[in-house]
Amino acid sequence: MSSQLRVAYQGEPGAFSEAAALACFGLSAIPVACTSFDQVFNAVEEGGCDYGVVPIENSLAGSIHRNYDLLLRHTLYIVGEYFLNVQHCLIVLPGVGLSEIRKVISHPQALAQCEHHLHALGEIETVAVNDTAGSVRLVREQGDPGVAAIASRRAAEVHQMVILIENFEDEASNFTRFLVIARQSIAPESAAKTSIVFTLRNQPGALFKALSVFALRDIDLTKIESRPLVGKPWEYLFYVDFSGSVSDPAVRRALQHLEEYAVMLRVLGSYPLHQANGTPSS
Amino acid sequence: MSSQLRVAYQGEPGAFSEAAALACFGLSAIPVACTSFDQVFNAVEEGGCDYGVVPIENSLAGSIHRNYDLLLRHTLYIVGEYFLNVQHCLIVLPGVGLSEIRKVISHPQALAQCEHHLHALGEIETVAVNDTAGSVRLVREQGDPGVAAIASRRAAEVHQMVILIENFEDEASNFTRFLVIARQSIAPESAAKTSIVFTLRNQPGALFKALSVFALRDIDLTKIESRPLVGKPWEYLFYVDFSGSVSDPAVRRALQHLEEYAVMLRVLGSYPLHQANGTPSS
Repeated sequence: MSSQLRVAYQGEPGAFSEAAALACFGLSAIPVACTSFDQVFNAVEEGGCDYGVVPIENSLAGSIHRNYDLLLRHTLYIVGEYFLNVQHCLIVLPGVGLSEIRKVISHPQALAQCEHHLHALGEIETVAVNDTAGSVRLVREQGDPGVAAIASRRAAEVHQMVILIENFEDEASNFTRFLVIARQSIAPESAAKTSIVFTLRNQPGALFKALSVFALRDIDLTKIESRPLVGKPWEYLFYVDFSGSVSDPAVRRALQHLEEYAVMLRVLGSYPLHQANGTPSS
Repeated sequence: MSSQLRVAYQGEPGAFSEAAALACFGLSAIPVACTSFDQVFNAVEEGGCDYGVVPIENSLAGSIHRNYDLLLRHTLYIVGEYFLNVQHCLIVLPGVGLSEIRKVISHPQALAQCEHHLHALGEIETVAVNDTAGSVRLVREQGDPGVAAIASRRAAEVHQMVILIENFEDEASNFTRFLVIARQSIAPESAAKTSIVFTLRNQPGALFKALSVFALRDIDLTKIESRPLVGKPWEYLFYVDFSGSVSDPAVRRALQHLEEYAVMLRVLGSYPLHQANGTPSS
């Protein structure tokens, strides 16, 4: 058996998820491209990959509930997080100048995030494709100098294409938070974060009481989000992240205390903090 | 001046946003297609349209932070909400059978939401396009019987195309919540909901104290979401919806109480509850 780590991600080489996977595990890891998030979770659960790296929230687009659903459906744990600053490049075939571009292709979210910069280029047609890295591959394969792609720096490198404009995104503060998932949970000893999911009875003040288990112990929340459960009018989920590790007795007591009160509580994992430049700590 | 209401939405005729606009204002209203969310907000603010209808959260994809940002950037108010059950149809040219389909086009989110059903069709290429309604228009314009689209029932009707499979989505409980925005706020007297945005000092227990203003008055929260402010490590936003209207003295007192404590507080609006089938009330 090889000692190289296999890390599953959704997308193709050059995708932002691949960049996050490499940033977390280094260049010696083998990034394994999957066509869907389901495949990423299955690859880790069935042992084909050691880890998976999936986006969980974006500063502009919000939380990706689908990946929370997959966390609940599988018996996997969060063992790390990574904040990736999403920087888009306008990418062309070698030798192409700005004035030649008539059409720009990319994932619809990338096109939307570069809307103002695209307008500034004048009369240009935009066409949505499945993903950002794939748009660079398409431009290379089709060989039409009038077509540009929007994707990461790495996607340009992977396909040996040219970056015409860097930081093409309209809003510089665009980050995606990725989670690292594994079959075994960990209990970090130093600065850590813990993610949980729980449901409560539908009573006035229910959430206030639930949060008291953290407030009483001065445990800082770093994320809270309610999610209505469609078709179950009396149930809804809460996603909460807080500072601290399950290795800390106060955290364990808070969770025991919450368990008494919650209808369902699942600890998704404790993991070391990733403090990205400019992202909030709490 | 015409007495017909003009209602701005993002997309083209047959879009889910257009369906939400028509459901809110009836068939006598004039839906006004806009190419971006920014245009929807501008159309309402500048008076070209009476109302705007924008998606704010989806049960699978999460909150659309971009539209929260636009609410904060404009001086507009939420005056209504609408829960739309997202039902996808597999749409083809007249006379086409299931066995002829080789390619399916739609918005990437729609393709993802129908992934399992698409797999069940066998070897089929999927191609992403800008929006669901536009995919139906493309299939009609191109006239290739081997290509199908995924979109709403109404998109099929608008383009006089045929629905081959209804309820093509993998998960039936897929709903999008839309907000109705206007230049003037309202203060409903009966069953209502109020949406606010606020920021707090970064202190342990800050959120717990903020929520006490509602718990003390038995005011039910229907949504809570924290959003980190990138580049401002000590600030973050909270989005909270709660039961009740600013016409209720208890709600006004809770908001005054919160104002003492919050760094920033903005009341986005009070509006009548929309109780969709199967969506949670609290």
